Amino acid sequence: MAYTVVGKSVTRVDAVAKVTGKAKYTDDFSERDMLVGKILHSPYAHAIVKSIDVSKAKALPGVEAVLTYKDLPEIRYATAMPGVIEAIATDEVDVAELKYGTAGHPFSLDESHRDKEDRYILTQKARFVGDNIAAVVATDALIASKALKLIEVEYEVLEALTSTDAALKEGAPLIHDDCEGNILASNGYAIGNIEEALKESDHVIEGEYETSIVQHCHMENQVSHAYVDSDRRIVIMTSTQIPHIVRRIVAQSLGISWGRVRVIKPYVGGGFGNKQDVCIEPLNVAMSLAVGGRPVKLELSREEAMIDTRTRHAFKFKIKTGINNDGKINGIHITAVSNTGAYASHGHSIASSGGGKFRYLYPTKALKFEPITVYTNLPVAGAMRGYGTPQIFFAFESHMEDIAKKLKMDPIEIRKKNLVEVGHVDLLSKNKIMSCSIRECIDKGRELIKWDAKKALYKDQSGDKRRGVGMACFSYASGTYPVALELAGARIVMNQDGSVQLQLGATEIGQGSDTVFAQMVAEVLGIPMYMVHVISTQDTDITPFDTGSYASRQTYVSGMAVEKAALEVKEKVLAFANRMTDIPAHLLDIKDQFVVFKDSGEQVIALEVVAMQSYYDRVNAQPITSDVSNNARINAIPYGVTFAEVEVDIKTGKIKILEIFNVHDSGKIVNPLLAEGQVHGGVSMGIGYALSEQLLFDEKTGKPLNNNLLDYKLPTIMDTPDIGAAFVEKEDPTGPFGVKSLGEPPIVSPAPAIRNAVYDATDVAFNRIPMNPQRVFEKFKETGLI
Amino acid sequence: MAYTVVGKSVTRVDAVAKVTGKAKYTDDFSERDMLVGKILHSPYAHAIVKSIDVSKAKALPGVEAVLTYKDLPEIRYATAMPGVIEAIATDEVDVAELKYGTAGHPFSLDESHRDKEDRYILTQKARFVGDNIAAVVATDALIASKALKLIEVEYEVLEALTSTDAALKEGAPLIHDDCEGNILASNGYAIGNIEEALKESDHVIEGEYETSIVQHCHMENQVSHAYVDSDRRIVIMTSTQIPHIVRRIVAQSLGISWGRVRVIKPYVGGGFGNKQDVCIEPLNVAMSLAVGGRPVKLELSREEAMIDTRTRHAFKFKIKTGINNDGKINGIHITAVSNTGAYASHGHSIASSGGGKFRYLYPTKALKFEPITVYTNLPVAGAMRGYGTPQIFFAFESHMEDIAKKLKMDPIEIRKKNLVEVGHVDLLSKNKIMSCSIRECIDKGRELIKWDAKKALYKDQSGDKRRGVGMACFSYASGTYPVALELAGARIVMNQDGSVQLQLGATEIGQGSDTVFAQMVAEVLGIPMYMVHVISTQDTDITPFDTGSYASRQTYVSGMAVEKAALEVKEKVLAFANRMTDIPAHLLDIKDQFVVFKDSGEQVIALEVVAMQSYYDRVNAQPITSDVSNNARINAIPYGVTFAEVEVDIKTGKIKILEIFNVHDSGKIVNPLLAEGQVHGGVSMGIGYALSEQLLFDEKTGKPLNNNLLDYKLPTIMDTPDIGAAFVEKEDPTGPFGVKSLGEPPIVSPAPAIRNAVYDATDVAFNRIPMNPQRVFEKFKETGLI
Repeated sequence: MAYTVVGKSVTRVDAVAKVTGKAKYTDDFSERDMLVGKILHSPYAHAIVKSIDVSKAKALPGVEAVLTYKDLPEIRYATAMPGVIEAIATDEVDVAELKYGTAGHPFSLDESHRDKEDRYILTQKARFVGDNIAAVVATDALIASKALKLIEVEYEVLEALTSTDAALKEGAPLIHDDCEGNILASNGYAIGNIEEALKESDHVIEGEYETSIVQHCHMENQVSHAYVDSDRRIVIMTSTQIPHIVRRIVAQSLGISWGRVRVIKPYVGGGFGNKQDVCIEPLNVAMSLAVGGRPVKLELSREEAMIDTRTRHAFKFKIKTGINNDGKINGIHITAVSNTGAYASHGHSIASSGGGKFRYLYPTKALKFEPITVYTNLPVAGAMRGYGTPQIFFAFESHMEDIAKKLKMDPIEIRKKNLVEVGHVDLLSKNKIMSCSIRECIDKGRELIKWDAKKALYKDQSGDKRRGVGMACFSYASGTYPVALELAGARIVMNQDGSVQLQLGATEIGQGSDTVFAQMVAEVLGIPMYMVHVISTQDTDITPFDTGSYASRQTYVSGMAVEKAALEVKEKVLAFANRMTDIPAHLLDIKDQFVVFKDSGEQVIALEVVAMQSYYDRVNAQPITSDVSNNARINAIPYGVTFAEVEVDIKTGKIKILEIFNVHDSGKIVNPLLAEGQVHGGVSMGIGYALSEQLLFDEKTGKPLNNNLLDYKLPTIMDTPDIGAAFVEKEDPTGPFGVKSLGEPPIVSPAPAIRNAVYDATDVAFNRIPMNPQRVFEKFKETGLI
Repeated sequence: MAYTVVGKSVTRVDAVAKVTGKAKYTDDFSERDMLVGKILHSPYAHAIVKSIDVSKAKALPGVEAVLTYKDLPEIRYATAMPGVIEAIATDEVDVAELKYGTAGHPFSLDESHRDKEDRYILTQKARFVGDNIAAVVATDALIASKALKLIEVEYEVLEALTSTDAALKEGAPLIHDDCEGNILASNGYAIGNIEEALKESDHVIEGEYETSIVQHCHMENQVSHAYVDSDRRIVIMTSTQIPHIVRRIVAQSLGISWGRVRVIKPYVGGGFGNKQDVCIEPLNVAMSLAVGGRPVKLELSREEAMIDTRTRHAFKFKIKTGINNDGKINGIHITAVSNTGAYASHGHSIASSGGGKFRYLYPTKALKFEPITVYTNLPVAGAMRGYGTPQIFFAFESHMEDIAKKLKMDPIEIRKKNLVEVGHVDLLSKNKIMSCSIRECIDKGRELIKWDAKKALYKDQSGDKRRGVGMACFSYASGTYPVALELAGARIVMNQDGSVQLQLGATEIGQGSDTVFAQMVAEVLGIPMYMVHVISTQDTDITPFDTGSYASRQTYVSGMAVEKAALEVKEKVLAFANRMTDIPAHLLDIKDQFVVFKDSGEQVIALEVVAMQSYYDRVNAQPITSDVSNNARINAIPYGVTFAEVEVDIKTGKIKILEIFNVHDSGKIVNPLLAEGQVHGGVSMGIGYALSEQLLFDEKTGKPLNNNLLDYKLPTIMDTPDIGAAFVEKEDPTGPFGVKSLGEPPIVSPAPAIRNAVYDATDVAFNRIPMNPQRVFEKFKETGLI
């Protein structure tokens, strides 16, 4: 379809606010006499607090409260309203022992679909270096820091299980008493009969692949402040992707009614999934409650944020693929060990999600996925851009390359042979592929990088610097359907001049969703962008309900709600115009701020005149608003491919990316410039994932070794090549304006494409990332290349 | 009907916020680097600026801008968006010469129903002492004040017309060029044939009555701040009763689209109608625009607020009443001269409104009302509690007393003979009296004050201290229908625990409307008050549209919207419950947080369970909200009476109120304690109106003589007797829960009741208020009493 605003690279609605510094983030807000909270983290990866003496800390002038796990029951009982606490009691929940889950999932009425509740606000048992043992509230940060040092803790140190191997070892101590063998969960799935499929195949090819722990490194660290308002409700302002879920989890952590919590989200400086978790808010609220509800601010330092929020799960995969001589895959058997760290958080969902989204790329008659998610004494892994898919696609797209090499097939051809077709229905999710341009994406990428010429050119290299090209594909999803609820809300209010305000449940966290939604509204209502005013702040008291920003669901899922709201407004405008003109509404449309005849485009009446009438008609006045909720029960599968060209310095192990292109099938692109920005960000993150990033820990003690931005090797702009972004735009019939998701996809395939390019250049297959110089160098030595 | 929450004296929802000081008023908010604005007021009542030199002021370090009328065109052209300014130009409006009206009326599509546009943001012609000549924006208040003194203005001083008599004199200079004879308007009405009615009457009794200029004296002076946000929109935070109207008027004053203005109203410290006017916001915005949109605060001092906002119109009435021997009135002829001061503001509406609301008390077959509203060189009169009715009822209820005396009839009996009956339809407004308990109110008041005993006791007094009793009745209205639009909006969002947020267009300004609305919602939804969270701040971007708080319209008109919103939520809850239980929704009700069988009250399912389902049902999830607008086209007429007992000190002229009772027919009383508070406030204001308050001006120059709280004699708590409040509660069939208005009514009848009591005590009829000791003493001398 031809659109006026959708598909245009309009300026971000928050551009001016952000470049002028006027956009207000959590840290820009303050409450009068706000206190400061600080956390005492465990120095041990696995230890029991035998005794804790806070008397010296409490005695320090300026210290308002010191909290340990012992104080929580008191806080909870004092917080619960009469009636509420009894309700909890009858539900046989011991408020004193209340545990909660932190994962930013929508919640489920089905108890078996809820997240594991294994977290305390403050713990008596440290499960990783950094675990929250005690907290201080003081008049300023310096006093709070001093007070932390005055807390005397005696620990009983236990064996630190710093790897999944150690945790799975028979007789290993249990990190959580109720988890046998330290296994959080192990449910997977099977399609067809994998044993038979492998047996029937001409070849069975095996491979092992491993990814490392990385961290989101969003610009803005976790920060929040909390207080009790004069209505006895808890108010939290926080840098989050999921205000409505923060509300629920804070309430659950205290055992109070959810309606008694109010969460406000100002501008957010990035999240990448780490703010799809409720890391600091329950403790922040407990801090406030400990000082009678006075406002307390809790801000993590970078060092804290890197270990005490969430990380990306490290995975170990074993893959066995049955394939015929013609390159057609019969069956795939994957086992995966996922390291979730000390607490569940998103836990096994990550493995499940990777295993689920992976299925949409190469459907096979047999597929067995056997993941286990294992507790270790390392920082907690959670949601991070891609949510399990960068791991599984690193493994499988490396594996595909290995198969191609083994079978001496063209890596593109073997993929094309196995790629999904439109109309395919996934057996488990029942999601149907309604659009798929992965083949066109591959062709486009192949051309952009001059694949065939370079393939020919880079054959049989020697010397210190060798070049190669590689590619890797991925499939993803648009939101979580049918795994979780996909509820989104939008509210539109039309002003007297025909301009509108747009309120969203979905959160702008830097990705540009506010702009994309405004474009959708402008498109439907026939008004220019400057007439759409997006309320970017979410406030659970008034913002339409939306589960939040994650799972690349905004443009697709929340977009449906936005389109629905805009269509409802349009319908009301046309109904008013009909009352004013007697022209049947179905003959009318809105264009350039005028109600027009749909067919001829002839102007009937100015939108402003209709809007004025909606406010001031003495009989029919009814200001035009819409307040909609949309429960999406559909999913659209986006696809894409990375093509990378690398130059490997054999002597130093340094890998340089010469060219890299991501080509995406994300349906219609609402804002090409923003879309390109998403791709740039995702690919850059993928480059770090492939080549340099890894959170390191002392193997014996579990102590973090590089939880800072100096030692953690996030690629800088100097390390990043020009990134090419291209799109094959075919409208998906299910998405609003034909969109499919694009938020997370760009991170999924760069790592395997780079790995495959390195393989192409050097004939050395790296099955573990990051391929940092040290590891590359060692591997080259091992393989005899140097 | 029996209610659970409605009719109970529940605690104000803002009680804790206000007594703890946590409630935030406009002055409690700040923007970074906020500048301060100050106004240069004219020292002359009538003068033309011949020249103005701001160079010295501009040169003062810390001064960011100095504005005069010359700067306004530039500001306006710079502000208008491309497209908008052209639209204005084609409408043949000269932006440079743009005038606007300030009255807080809803706006009308009918041009002839709009307010007179006679105001400039800054003027070249001063029309009262205090008129806005120039403005300064500086980094702090001290510098701004200094800069004001550096502005050099040369005036051509014109004759100051400080009374309506002077303004109406032939040949008087014109205050506004386009107003012949300085008359703003003179339209009145006539019912029947007054000449015939008077001719047919046994007696024709005449009287003249006069009221003075008084001021609202709300605790919080006018204060606002304004800036341009990064979306190029104007944001104003202001202490107002009418945020949506401020939006319109600011836009009109600048000639820009209304949607480009956003108005936020925090807690407000009283308004009494003075904040139903847009006094400072356009200038505040101009100040910000003069400094490139940076935030500027404008706060009036008490001295400024008392002359440069609004006052109550002074009136002079001549009344001629034709009455028969049996006490039945045949016809009334009223002429009224209303002094609107230098600008129109609410202007003639005040006279019209008084003449309109007055009609509902004593319907007669002939009634002629001839008001004229006259410009003078005094501060601008506008809306003030009662809106013209305290004036006309002072006149007419004094007049009724005079008639009773003349005819030697009992003052109560003569009134009862003429009082309206249920079923009466007003010939002009077509409003039908659906409930009326004025007779019961009179009986109750008579009993409370022990009227008959005192009447007997106080006959034939002599001596220095004489006592008397008096009474006076009134009628009012609930909102403005059919004069103006009565649109109100409410939005309710139900949380997962069944608690709700309530968003209102109607503004809490201290009167307690938030509490009353919360009670209505709690009543309909069967939940306790603590589960209703009222969003007390209005923000035109997101708040449902409501014209504002004035005309005693909240409980009745906005209450309709609130009830409608709550009923819609209830309907949705029961529909969900039906889906969950298959019990027909029409058999169900909500009570004590449970969905119950309507008839038996038997519990079916907890509200919380339904609410949870509304959020998390995988198929039917649809969070329960309502966002309604209600266009009330009906009115309910409240009635009431004041009974007062006074002791007059003949030698000093001091009048002491011994007892005073207001008895109200306001339909169902939602919150008796709040209602009593309204009555206490209104009666106290009425006592000041009767006995002590008057803004004084030098007759020759028009200079204010007592525009401060020391010299302006507002009654203190020491001057105020115990005030008795009583209600005759009969539910009006049109109001939500049977309510009628109560906000303004208590101010209407105290003054004439006190006047009549003084008459009873002294046999001296005061036909002019205030009856302050000086005036009483003079009158006693004049009548030979001393």
